[in-house]
Amino acid sequence: MSDTRDRAAVLGALLCDPTSKLNVECKLLGLDDAWEHLLRGGPNVPEPLRERLRNTDASAFARRGIDAGGRIVVPGDPDWPGVLDDLGLLAPWALWVRGNAPMTVFDARAVAIVGARACTSYGRDVASEFAHGIASAGTAVVSGGAYGIDAAAHRGALAAEGVTVAVLSCGIDMAYPAEHTALLERITERGLIVTEAAPGSHPTKPSFLVRNRLIAALAYGTVVVEARLRSGSISTYAHARALHRLLMAVPGPVTAAESAGTNLLLQQDAQLVTNAREVLGLVKPLGSVALEDPVAPSSEWDTLTREQQHVYECLPARRALRVDQLQGQAPLFLSGMALMAALAGLAARELVTELDDGTWRRARPLRGVAA
Amino acid sequence: MSDTRDRAAVLGALLCDPTSKLNVECKLLGLDDAWEHLLRGGPNVPEPLRERLRNTDASAFARRGIDAGGRIVVPGDPDWPGVLDDLGLLAPWALWVRGNAPMTVFDARAVAIVGARACTSYGRDVASEFAHGIASAGTAVVSGGAYGIDAAAHRGALAAEGVTVAVLSCGIDMAYPAEHTALLERITERGLIVTEAAPGSHPTKPSFLVRNRLIAALAYGTVVVEARLRSGSISTYAHARALHRLLMAVPGPVTAAESAGTNLLLQQDAQLVTNAREVLGLVKPLGSVALEDPVAPSSEWDTLTREQQHVYECLPARRALRVDQLQGQAPLFLSGMALMAALAGLAARELVTELDDGTWRRARPLRGVAA
Repeated sequence: MSDTRDRAAVLGALLCDPTSKLNVECKLLGLDDAWEHLLRGGPNVPEPLRERLRNTDASAFARRGIDAGGRIVVPGDPDWPGVLDDLGLLAPWALWVRGNAPMTVFDARAVAIVGARACTSYGRDVASEFAHGIASAGTAVVSGGAYGIDAAAHRGALAAEGVTVAVLSCGIDMAYPAEHTALLERITERGLIVTEAAPGSHPTKPSFLVRNRLIAALAYGTVVVEARLRSGSISTYAHARALHRLLMAVPGPVTAAESAGTNLLLQQDAQLVTNAREVLGLVKPLGSVALEDPVAPSSEWDTLTREQQHVYECLPARRALRVDQLQGQAPLFLSGMALMAALAGLAARELVTELDDGTWRRARPLRGVAA
Repeated sequence: MSDTRDRAAVLGALLCDPTSKLNVECKLLGLDDAWEHLLRGGPNVPEPLRERLRNTDASAFARRGIDAGGRIVVPGDPDWPGVLDDLGLLAPWALWVRGNAPMTVFDARAVAIVGARACTSYGRDVASEFAHGIASAGTAVVSGGAYGIDAAAHRGALAAEGVTVAVLSCGIDMAYPAEHTALLERITERGLIVTEAAPGSHPTKPSFLVRNRLIAALAYGTVVVEARLRSGSISTYAHARALHRLLMAVPGPVTAAESAGTNLLLQQDAQLVTNAREVLGLVKPLGSVALEDPVAPSSEWDTLTREQQHVYECLPARRALRVDQLQGQAPLFLSGMALMAALAGLAARELVTELDDGTWRRARPLRGVAA
């Protein structure tokens, strides 16, 4: 009998719809019994499928992917991404993997960045910026290798010399789209290409939808950057929701069809994220990520806490205010202790002064801020 | 003793900071006793204020505003907007009002649209579109008469021949900014100009902040269209929050400083709105507003419910799927009954067909949709 890995890969390829009754039945049987069940045939086993299995030489089937540099990973392997077990009976039988990153990147909370193929330059810039920041922090960026947002995300991560993972819906030996052949090669240098499709297989529409559940499952959280109302990335998001993953979306103009899907997700249950730092703050365990902005602040204003900014803003330029007056003007974030803390912080920077009568006034203007 | 209305207007002008201890003290005393208290003087009454009150002829003071077409409305008047009582002790002593709309517009749930003076063309377009849609539905649009988002909101409402209200921080006889003289005149024709500032007074920075609480209080909900992190409209929003008003914001590009404030509000507690219909859906009592899009749908796609769109999208173009397969592909919105309802709705339009084996397939392409 052929190698377990090879046979798992064959079953995954033949039972390509993970939600089909037959696949679930086979999952319940386990690899060996499922293999026998399908070979034996029966009322639930379509004859063409039985025929194909009978004519398949599992090692020859696998050789094509292995010759292309791929390896097969199955549940139980030390390399198997434990996060996929959240898929339960819908988990893949086997994964084809190619590239130099260790599979442990998925245990360390990867982030999926997905979105429209036909994206705008705004979406492309945002996807690339987010991916750059996330990959710089040592977090893997997962996407689907497609045009548009996917490619921008992979490229942003590569530019940061970080790890990025392309989850494909075609065989491990195929490059789809063909224009991304070089991009996919670059991804394998530091990252990974992952697929459950048979070597030699071309992507089909159902295979995209099946693939999307893998993207969602491999990542701890999914960021949708730009998506129309009808969009494949909405399907990835739906899988992420079903898997109780962290759901994030980037807002966009209400006048842009490319942001209609993302704005809708934000009206539902997506968390709004505006930069990589916010994504990392949500995804990474507390304490594991430096929340300071790595970019040098452009003005003194940017060095203040949000509370300090608000209090400084509420102090008129030439008049002193009592604390209770400040509270009346600063209902957005503050009351009591928080207000006093903000005033103390501002005073320590000599931005505000307390006068003898207990009122507060601005002591000097902010540096590097237009009046 | 002079007219109650005139004296209330005088007190409002003299005690211009509603959060000051003296104003609150006077509010607790009531108009007549407060007037005597201030005239008599005492440790809490600044001598210059006492001096000014002593030298003020209340009817002469009021005449300037009345000559400019204004009228004074005080608490207890049938015309007094009951919504202002939510301000408690911070409610105005008196309002100056000019224009042809009845004050009952505030009882019918007005909507405030506010935002940056230095807005982008995106913000201007959105403010104007929102205001047009809201005013068309018979709901008053409240704003601050300023450049940028405010002006766009007023103009959008005027273009719809609807009611719009400009809440000013200068006297009822003043036009600020001067370039808006014609706009403010147009507003009075069908709408209102409202202020609590003394006739003849120019706006000051504190007066803007004081005015912002009036905008928030007069509206049932506030929509922030575009706002930088440091923005006056954030102060309006803060007042709206303190008053438990409905909080809404329009998302914008994460790359635009003009949307940094609005995107931040959306991360806090603002509801994301993308068009006037959504605003009306949130603001108006159930059943009082037609939720159909007044714009003719541009394609058959737009006539489908969101569920129907999703199910139709999940059906491959040339293959039939079982219901359980569809469920595997449509986890975003649907399961069980909802899926069957969507299929039934699509079948009634002859967009999908159930085959003899119980699977479903697309019956025809959508009209008016590019493939």
